[in-house]
Amino acid sequence: MEAYFDNAATTAVFPEVKDIMIKLMDEDYGNPSSLHMKGVEAERYIKTATTQIAKELKCQEKEIVFTSGGTEANNMAIIGGAMAHRRAGKHIITSEIEHASVSATMDFLAKEGYEISVVGVDSVGKLKLDELKATLRPDTILVSVMYVNNEIGAIQPVEEIGKIIKDYNSSILYHIDAVQAFGKLRFTPKKLGADLLSISGHKIHGPKGSGVLYIKEKTLIRPIIYGGGQQKAMRSGTENVPAIAGMGLAAELMYKNHDAKMEHIRGLKEAFIDKVTTLENVFDNSGEAPHIASVSFVGIRSEVMLHALEERGVYVSSGSACSSNKPHVSNVLKAIGLDNTKLESTLRFSFSEFNTMEQVEYAVQVIEEILPVFRRYIRK
Amino acid sequence: MEAYFDNAATTAVFPEVKDIMIKLMDEDYGNPSSLHMKGVEAERYIKTATTQIAKELKCQEKEIVFTSGGTEANNMAIIGGAMAHRRAGKHIITSEIEHASVSATMDFLAKEGYEISVVGVDSVGKLKLDELKATLRPDTILVSVMYVNNEIGAIQPVEEIGKIIKDYNSSILYHIDAVQAFGKLRFTPKKLGADLLSISGHKIHGPKGSGVLYIKEKTLIRPIIYGGGQQKAMRSGTENVPAIAGMGLAAELMYKNHDAKMEHIRGLKEAFIDKVTTLENVFDNSGEAPHIASVSFVGIRSEVMLHALEERGVYVSSGSACSSNKPHVSNVLKAIGLDNTKLESTLRFSFSEFNTMEQVEYAVQVIEEILPVFRRYIRK
Repeated sequence: MEAYFDNAATTAVFPEVKDIMIKLMDEDYGNPSSLHMKGVEAERYIKTATTQIAKELKCQEKEIVFTSGGTEANNMAIIGGAMAHRRAGKHIITSEIEHASVSATMDFLAKEGYEISVVGVDSVGKLKLDELKATLRPDTILVSVMYVNNEIGAIQPVEEIGKIIKDYNSSILYHIDAVQAFGKLRFTPKKLGADLLSISGHKIHGPKGSGVLYIKEKTLIRPIIYGGGQQKAMRSGTENVPAIAGMGLAAELMYKNHDAKMEHIRGLKEAFIDKVTTLENVFDNSGEAPHIASVSFVGIRSEVMLHALEERGVYVSSGSACSSNKPHVSNVLKAIGLDNTKLESTLRFSFSEFNTMEQVEYAVQVIEEILPVFRRYIRK
Repeated sequence: MEAYFDNAATTAVFPEVKDIMIKLMDEDYGNPSSLHMKGVEAERYIKTATTQIAKELKCQEKEIVFTSGGTEANNMAIIGGAMAHRRAGKHIITSEIEHASVSATMDFLAKEGYEISVVGVDSVGKLKLDELKATLRPDTILVSVMYVNNEIGAIQPVEEIGKIIKDYNSSILYHIDAVQAFGKLRFTPKKLGADLLSISGHKIHGPKGSGVLYIKEKTLIRPIIYGGGQQKAMRSGTENVPAIAGMGLAAELMYKNHDAKMEHIRGLKEAFIDKVTTLENVFDNSGEAPHIASVSFVGIRSEVMLHALEERGVYVSSGSACSSNKPHVSNVLKAIGLDNTKLESTLRFSFSEFNTMEQVEYAVQVIEEILPVFRRYIRK
């Protein structure tokens, strides 16, 4: 049996998404900037995708900008926001459990003379709101916070965070990295108070190379890629029409029968955690997100366990797969205060609608077989 | 009959490219940063594509960075190069016939305090080398020049330009925008003296959303997108594996039977120009590139002619399709000194290996029919 439990890293595309992409490569391959029919047709696919995304985010179509992915969307929000508002100040706030596409971008801005404050989280990965309040300053121009953490699935109180920021100073830009939230939770940027919000296509059975940055009407940011003025001059370059059309469709499909799907996925996650934590020295670190389970197999290094599972067809991640493949100690797990025995032994199991309870049972059975073998032979 | 003569705007993907992309969406959909087999498999496709591109450019694999397209590659070369070398100076040189992804990026840098010198071209679109020599300064850090012009097909003496720059100061970065040259001309960045060279996938029957920046060994530039450290930390974000694999394969296919293909394409271009310029008040502005014909139909506005051709199934561009679809007077045509009657009446016909002589004959026949009708009824 095969069990792909690495859906927070990337997902298989929906068959319907694949079909529309094939059509766009075969027949409707025009450049949306061309003035003739083949260009107009291509432009129409972008329009449809924009409508689809705007519908799920309950926002205006002009607030949608397509990017090459979540990482670009996060970079654009943070660098573009920081540059556009640097005259108002150079202080930026983020959390200690952000994705590398946020934290590494902050490192870049720090070198460019911005001051970055990193707010801590509690033992379940929630932002310390008092610390956030104390960190806000008159020269704060941007706050960037992750909605659903990619390693443990902690859900931030993003609406409350938005209120705190905007109460302090309504002109501070509020960016939410919603890459792991979109398609799983129902939300609207407006209700959350976000000025900027990033989502990704390939986490929701859409194509790799697709993402969206929601930019609230009248929010001023600078592009980070310049050229022919595509995407309302916010993101130049010939639009990746197949990827854009695929992402729009994936968003629509993801939110179809959404409650039932999420119940299924959450069911898999909870069953997995319930079963696996009955085993000796197995601990659960998971947050509330429906699709992410973070489990520590104390005494067994995560890479060793990952490869043992892989040999039996169970695919998971150690920490996050979003960093180029050097194993390293996770900032997120450190931030929530895991001790060393857990830091080095934690795996992420992330589920999708294509997973089944049989796969969960199979994975648990594999773990039951592997654990005693490792525990017998591996001594530190 | 249909004749897609807008191949400089974008191309249909090779069937083989489509097939590999389908496989990568269906089966091998892993995240290349995942440590398990599905990640390793995905990584292998990137490796293969890197080998394919490096082979055609005759460069080292470590000199290849995949981007989301030509526009991003140009932005990365110019912004990344300018930022990394700003301590040595803030003077940058470019030409007056660059693609918007270069010229708009220069505009951005000008606002950031860089000084941009724009060197002129002669009546056939060749850079004025004496002017270039006179423009080089001790604080020049970067020169960016287009290899094949996208509107008229002029080929720059990029090797000679490289020598001039490096003779003056070998530490000046030399960037070549080779988006319209790759797949059509045979060249190597090394022979041209380039430190940085941009290419795009969708101009060579590869996927949209794919591009490469060649970065010569030991050349220092900064990334423009930060995150998980993919692509040797030069371009973060989950790699768009289907697009990367598709682009590598497209490059390989493009250079297979290359001489015969280019002879075919050049044959189409020359036959078209020969036939069409026998008509009254039709003028040729084309450069030497095998695939691009620039023709002025004096007395008929280019948009009018474009739509009349479109109605008969002939798809072409007015100027370049790379700028988001507002018609405007072309900088390139102005730079080579076309008068107003030609500026407003020029179309680009761009050919690929999938075009036929029958299509050329058909297009000429359509033009022969259209021209007298318009000339009779349209008075300015």
